[in-house]
Amino acid sequence: METPGTSEPGGATVEPLSRGPLEKLLVYHLRRVQSAAFQHFAAYLNHRDITPGQLGLLVLIACNPGVSQSVLAREIKVERSTLGEFIDRFESRQLVERRQVATDRRIHAIHLSSKGRRFLDQVLPEVEAHEREFTGTLSAQDQRTLIRLLKRLAG
Amino acid sequence: METPGTSEPGGATVEPLSRGPLEKLLVYHLRRVQSAAFQHFAAYLNHRDITPGQLGLLVLIACNPGVSQSVLAREIKVERSTLGEFIDRFESRQLVERRQVATDRRIHAIHLSSKGRRFLDQVLPEVEAHEREFTGTLSAQDQRTLIRLLKRLAG
Repeated sequence: METPGTSEPGGATVEPLSRGPLEKLLVYHLRRVQSAAFQHFAAYLNHRDITPGQLGLLVLIACNPGVSQSVLAREIKVERSTLGEFIDRFESRQLVERRQVATDRRIHAIHLSSKGRRFLDQVLPEVEAHEREFTGTLSAQDQRTLIRLLKRLAG
Repeated sequence: METPGTSEPGGATVEPLSRGPLEKLLVYHLRRVQSAAFQHFAAYLNHRDITPGQLGLLVLIACNPGVSQSVLAREIKVERSTLGEFIDRFESRQLVERRQVATDRRIHAIHLSSKGRRFLDQVLPEVEAHEREFTGTLSAQDQRTLIRLLKRLAG
């Protein structure tokens, strides 16, 4: 069978791949770009021992002192149990502190520690460099369009 | 301090959250939408015991009989070791078969099994229903724009 792509060693398959029904599935392209972003972030920030999700969460805590876990979980669209595990990890690295809320002892207010502040001050310029490189194939206008559509999709 | 949002029980925090530098980070919004899509998919397809990434991979195998693991890893932007684990899981569920390539015994050609074909025939209409609901807040034009920009970003 003749195909337009290149053969793999051993002739096992050819490129370009057919994506079939995936080609029109927005969620497929979303996931693919998200994986590429994750790999790119890891290559840039490997030495920091932090994932993109954890980093975003730390920034949210920095910008919203005393925020609760349930509000954070809603913002980053993860289950509350997953969020709790993130916070546990930050606490063991002394990047954040859980403080009890006087009016309701079941709720903890999350605060960035001074160590967490220093960590963010070091890491944020690296994150911005990663973002600039990763999004460099898009014009500033296209980047704004993309953010606007993604925000609408997240609801 | 007066804020425009609603108080959480216990007054621990308020909405809307400030996103600070995240607001302009495309990769933050990408990750947030991807998490929302993952949760939405899970709610729709919980009974199928498959993740969005695994499902996409199975469709690629269906559309490209005999494809190699390295080509699949490149397409969905994951490490080869991660891809290998996906294929192991599919094989143990008898959804795919690894066949040795005659010309190079180190390479395996991946094929969908007839059980895998039946599985996809059942699941794909559900995936399309999930996609329609998840992307329903965007016009068809906006969906096309979004896919175009995401493809350019994935390179």
